[in-house]
Formats: sequence, structure tokens, C-alpha cells
Amino acid sequence: MSLALEGTLRERVGRLIGDELRACEAGITRELASLPVLLLREISEHVARAGGKRLRPILVLLGARLGRGAPARAVRLGCVVELLHTATLIHDDVVDQAPLRRGQPSANARWGDDAAVLVGDHLYSRCMALLVADGDLAVMDALAAAMVSMTEAEVFQLERKRAGQLSEDDYLRIIRQKTATFMSACCRIGGLAGGLDAAAVEALGAYGERLGIAFQITDDSLDFDADEARLGKAIGSDLREGKRTLPLIATLERATLPERARILQTLARPESAEGAVAEVHRLVKVYDGVGYAVGRAAAYAAKGAAELARLPRSEAREVLALIAEYVVHRDR
Amino acid sequence: MSLALEGTLRERVGRLIGDELRACEAGITRELASLPVLLLREISEHVARAGGKRLRPILVLLGARLGRGAPARAVRLGCVVELLHTATLIHDDVVDQAPLRRGQPSANARWGDDAAVLVGDHLYSRCMALLVADGDLAVMDALAAAMVSMTEAEVFQLERKRAGQLSEDDYLRIIRQKTATFMSACCRIGGLAGGLDAAAVEALGAYGERLGIAFQITDDSLDFDADEARLGKAIGSDLREGKRTLPLIATLERATLPERARILQTLARPESAEGAVAEVHRLVKVYDGVGYAVGRAAAYAAKGAAELARLPRSEAREVLALIAEYVVHRDR
Repeated sequence: MSLALEGTLRERVGRLIGDELRACEAGITRELASLPVLLLREISEHVARAGGKRLRPILVLLGARLGRGAPARAVRLGCVVELLHTATLIHDDVVDQAPLRRGQPSANARWGDDAAVLVGDHLYSRCMALLVADGDLAVMDALAAAMVSMTEAEVFQLERKRAGQLSEDDYLRIIRQKTATFMSACCRIGGLAGGLDAAAVEALGAYGERLGIAFQITDDSLDFDADEARLGKAIGSDLREGKRTLPLIATLERATLPERARILQTLARPESAEGAVAEVHRLVKVYDGVGYAVGRAAAYAAKGAAELARLPRSEAREVLALIAEYVVHRDR
Repeated sequence: MSLALEGTLRERVGRLIGDELRACEAGITRELASLPVLLLREISEHVARAGGKRLRPILVLLGARLGRGAPARAVRLGCVVELLHTATLIHDDVVDQAPLRRGQPSANARWGDDAAVLVGDHLYSRCMALLVADGDLAVMDALAAAMVSMTEAEVFQLERKRAGQLSEDDYLRIIRQKTATFMSACCRIGGLAGGLDAAAVEALGAYGERLGIAFQITDDSLDFDADEARLGKAIGSDLREGKRTLPLIATLERATLPERARILQTLARPESAEGAVAEVHRLVKVYDGVGYAVGRAAAYAAKGAAELARLPRSEAREVLALIAEYVVHRDR
């Protein structure tokens, strides 16, 4: 089912914005190839080309298509958001000490934390310079606010992790601020580039926020229940890093006191035995933590899709609705 | 001599822009106190309040004073550049794994690399948001270009360090891009805020660049020859981190082949014996590496001061000239 949906979505995206998306890819390649230091080029090309979904540029391009298009500018902004996203991935992997990213060694694993921190910083700065060259304060405002929100949430997440506590509300705050605000900003700047009016931009932003929440909950659920080869990383990576995500939070809510204690013990130890990890997986299955999370994701995706009703009917709007469906049903 | 100069400078800065500088300090305190996550506040206050010289805000404020002042705006921009500077210090210390900063534990030593990376990112983002709120594309352009240049130089420096090579030209490229471009941008945005014409802004920028080079060479020389208590870190820290700075580069140029080999061996080992470090210090003294570096710094400072002749005579211009003198003769 999800493969068929992915095929349909890819085909419709290709038909509608395929040229822009290829231009965006070429723009990213050009931007990275122009970096003036070899180590900079190597690391950022390694991460940017590792086959991400390019969801954020797609949102920008579709947002612009809802209005009068402005393809050249939307393509430039699509490059910027993908480079920004790349920068956040590089720093995230340093912070989490993640060994893998999309099936490849992470930048920090391959080139060291020091190089990864600096290359991430450089990509951030390049994005700021590209936005200044674009010269639209409304676009800059949307992205700057998203970055403030994302980085604040990252620190909050770390604080909660150190406290050994994370409620469902905390979790939702984090994913809203980390993933959803950025996707919302991508939608909005697309709309701004396409010349949409304020109400339409706001509707697009509301769609993007709900989409982002649904996307992240699904991402976190896939860590418990996916095909490793398709996912590009080992199942249970989050768990082994001690990350509390919604399937686990739901399981903790429902488990007996002794079960809860066992889960918390496993979370607290960075190098838990495989038996302990398997036991947590068993409990998540028993209490249907993934089912709960997926249900929540589906509800957010549906709310997101409902926001689209405030926009004029169009091919781009249909594809956005399809994306809301896809993010919940994807398998990687 | 340097203490007397520092006293004179402090007194004249205080008389001319003391109120703005205090407002700037209050602005930084307010900005950091408003951070919405405890860990964010703790770390950024720890670093921002550790008693920096506030040279970058001073340059902004003096630049504005050369024109028609615009004190409120110059104060806001002064806050931004100090917060940006704070963010770069936090990341620099992660990259160098520095244990101390201005006599205090570094952010990474006290709160961990993960927290330091994220807090640095948040401060960068806040600065970008503050600049967008300020709304002046010329100011944003100057700072974005400086950040691109700084972060590029950081990666280049790491690449050279890993190659085990650094020529005097490489060194000058790095400090120009890292320290000087940012100080130049501080001068220029001050001038822009004060409404100076393009030629005056350019003269200020040229002054700032040469000042920055002189400042950094002196900084690197102090690592060989300063009072530890006043410097706030151990003498020879750069050396023990394997950093090649101008006094060492000059010594390597002049030393005999066996001496050269001994120096390179000490640099290559992160934990060299105190005897080996002392031997490098002895050779730097023998070949007057610090004397050479200080001579170069003085030449850059003099060139910087000469640029000021293109600006109208004023109290602010005199203080800028005094700063060019101070950065070479300071003892911390």
C-alpha cells in the first residue's frame, strides 16, 4: 500500500514540479561544488546527496505553484531550505553521536565532530547569505523564526533527556518546534514566493505545521517497526540512544509499574543488552504503542489536509493532500 | 605601558560611548534572560558574562558615532554582534576541545559538547532573527558575508591542521577570514547605522580588517608570552593543542633542520611532555618568533590607523586610533 502511494505521489510530483525539482537538485549540486575548501565540499556533498526525500523543497515548490508559480525564485528558496535542513542533520548527528545517516556513515563518524560542527555552521551561514541575496524580509522572517524555534527545542529536548523525563506534552512541543515549524515555514515561503495573499499563506502554514507533526510521529514510529534496509538505519536506534518517542511514551503510560521500571532502566543505559532492548520492543507491541502513535499522526495529517480546503482547488493542492496521506503511510 | 594605555582607552571609551555600552550590556543581559529554556540561559549567560572586552560592540558604537550616532539602533546591533561572537566562541571551544575560556570552564567542559553545539546554534538563530527585525539588508549582508568567511576559514584551518601544514600565507588567510572580516563588519554596520556615506563605510571597513589581523596576531603571541592570571588561560595552550600561529611559523622558518623536526614532533603529539613544550618555547625565544609576530601586528595596526585619515576628524576617530594602538600593546 505505502509503496503504491509513494509511486503515485512521485509520479504526480514529477508531472507537476519535476522540472523545478531537478533545477533545485542542480542548484544544490552547484552550490556545494562551489564551496572553496575541499573538506567543506566533501562533507556537505556526502550528506546532501545521501538521498533525502527533498520533502522541504517540494513543499516550497508546491506552495509557489498554488499561487502564480515564480519558478526561478521558488527553486532558489528550495535549495536554501534543503541546505538548511542538511546543516541541521549534520549537527543533530554530532549531538546524538549517531554513527549512521541514511545507511551511510554520518559526517561526524567519518570526519570527526570538529569538522561536522564547522561544516554545519558554514552551511547555516551560506543559507543566511543566500536569503539576504534574495532580499525578502518576510521570507527571512519565516525561516529565522523557524530556526529559533528548532534550536530552542533541541536544547529543551536535551534538558528533558538529562532530567530523564518526557511527557507526551513535552514530546509534542519538541516535534512541533523542531520538525513542524520548519515544514510550516517551507510551505509559507513557497506561498510568499508565489504571491499568495496573507490568508492563503496562513492556511498553507497551518497545513505544514500539522504535516510536520504527523511526519515526525511517523518517523519515530518507524524506529520500532520498519524494514531496516528501506529505512537506512537499524531499528531501535532511537531506543538505544535513550530517546523517548511517542510509541514509548504511550507504552510507559499503559505499562504496569514493574514493566515501567524495566523500560526506564533500559533507556537510562546507553549500552543496554540486546535482551533488554528486545523486551522494550515486546512491551511496545503488547501495549500497541506504535498503533497509538500512528493514530495520532493520522489525526494530525487529516487536520493538515483539512486546512487545504481554505485554498483554491488545484493540482498543487491535491498533491499537498496526497503528501499528508503519504507521510503517515510511508515505510521509510 | 600597556596598563596605562588600557586605562586611557577605557576612560575615553567610557566618556564617549559609556552610556551606549552600558545599554548594550543591559540588552545582552535582557536577551539572554528571556531565553525560554533553563539550559540555554545557563550556558549562554556563563559564556557571555565571563568578562569579554566587548571590542566588537565598541567598534559598532564608535562607527555609528562617526556619523550621526543613531544610538538606540547601534546599541541593538552591538548586542547582536556580541551574541554572534559568543556563539562562535562556544563552537570554537567544542572544536578545539578547550577546557577553559577566560579563566572559567568552557561551555563544553561544563555542559558537554552536545549542549554547547545546540546553544551555539540557538544564539546564531537568535541573531539572525534580531537582524531580520532590524530590517536593513545592507547590515545583514555585511554580517552574513562575515559569517560565511569565518566558518569557511575554520574549516580551512582544520584541513590544514590535519595535513600538518600551515604557511604564513595560510595563517594570514585564516586570521583575515576569521577575526578580521568580523571586526571589519562590526565597523561597517556601525557606520551604516550612523548614516555614513559609502566611502566612509569602506574606510571604516578597511580599518577594521587591519585591526582584526593585528588583534589576532597579538592574541596568538600572548600564548607564548603573557601573565597567565591576566590572560585567563595557561600559557602555551595553543601549542599544546597543536595550533600553529605566527610566532611558531616564524620560528620554524628560521630554525635548523633538527630543531624544526623537534618542534613538528611536539606539535603532532596532543599530550607532549612539559620538557618538549619548554624546548619549543626556548626556540621561539631564540629565534624571536614573538618579536617577528608583534612587528607584523604593529604594521597592520599602523595601516589600519592610516585608513582613518579618510574619515573626518572627531573624538570617535581618535578613540579608534587608540584602539589600533591598544590591540598590539595589550597584555591579555
